[in-house]
Amino acid sequence: MYQSEIGVYRMNFLEERILKDGIVKEGNVLKVDSFLNHQMDVALLDEIGKEFHRRFADLKITKVLTIEASGIAIAYAAARCFGVPMVFAKKAKSINIDGDMYTAEVESFTHKNKNQIIVSKKFLSKDDKVLIIDDFLANGCALQGLISITEAAGGSVEGIGIVIEKGFQFGGRSIRNLGYRLESLAIVDSMDAATKTIVFREQGT
Amino acid sequence: MYQSEIGVYRMNFLEERILKDGIVKEGNVLKVDSFLNHQMDVALLDEIGKEFHRRFADLKITKVLTIEASGIAIAYAAARCFGVPMVFAKKAKSINIDGDMYTAEVESFTHKNKNQIIVSKKFLSKDDKVLIIDDFLANGCALQGLISITEAAGGSVEGIGIVIEKGFQFGGRSIRNLGYRLESLAIVDSMDAATKTIVFREQGT
Repeated sequence: MYQSEIGVYRMNFLEERILKDGIVKEGNVLKVDSFLNHQMDVALLDEIGKEFHRRFADLKITKVLTIEASGIAIAYAAARCFGVPMVFAKKAKSINIDGDMYTAEVESFTHKNKNQIIVSKKFLSKDDKVLIIDDFLANGCALQGLISITEAAGGSVEGIGIVIEKGFQFGGRSIRNLGYRLESLAIVDSMDAATKTIVFREQGT
Repeated sequence: MYQSEIGVYRMNFLEERILKDGIVKEGNVLKVDSFLNHQMDVALLDEIGKEFHRRFADLKITKVLTIEASGIAIAYAAARCFGVPMVFAKKAKSINIDGDMYTAEVESFTHKNKNQIIVSKKFLSKDDKVLIIDDFLANGCALQGLISITEAAGGSVEGIGIVIEKGFQFGGRSIRNLGYRLESLAIVDSMDAATKTIVFREQGT
């Protein structure tokens, strides 16, 4: 239970885990590397996959799309619940990838650089109903790249599932404003490294 | 069934899948991007995870270690069968990683470049009994980096599980010669882009 100014909010399993093991650093950095994006708690991943399936169960998803690297395990956790293939966008041109691919340019908040991301045209088509999955949403650049690639393939972005959204950055709002169905398992509205506090946006489930 | 010169060899599920969907390209490139390292078949990943668990079930594994990106889903598939955390080595320094980390230098066969790989010291210790997992083994550079990091932490490399080994390159032999218990679900002894043939090493199961 989390005491907020307007009452009592029952946190979900992920928010509880973030409060327990997440570390707030200066510069609005939330480190979840002990359970989500360096060391991974496999039971938590299983639960995240099930929760995305529960939230998007009404959609006829044909493919789960994410971007390397830390999105991969989460997308797999979700895709196995839907029973559909998972595709991950790659960050650099590899000699193992044919010329025929969709591309988008993505700026990384974490690494302060730009990457081209690519998906082979073989693995997305106009018939695909895509669930996009990623671990973090901040300014939304990675997500916009994945949306752009899906739409370039003629597929439809049926839903977007994010594990942790930084609600104080503009990515989530701009993507919701565009009409996409975006669900984040935890939305951090503010955090403070000095007092080690994290405030989650209260969401219905 | 695969007809070899010395009799009939019953292929395992992975060898069958490679023959069915793998594509042999010039330069000893085996493309498995339709089911293993770009688009991922989640049912196949589940089966790969179970098979690694079966082969290493006698070991008291405490952690599964891999390297981003395509190793991640496979390592997760294995780690969930063992019920232990998975850790993936990262390829570049991120501002989200503390200074306290193990590092190793790794040369990529696919990308023809060198990367530093890093694992936070928080996630490997002298008490860890590690199963290293990766999708491909060719010259073994990535694997040597993961071994070196595990041993720098004082942990023991209990086993190494590889999905596809290129048996005509020296990585597998040199790592076995060092005494490591290395199991590859499929070992490609030769392949030919002109005739589109793949010859697997016959292995006991």
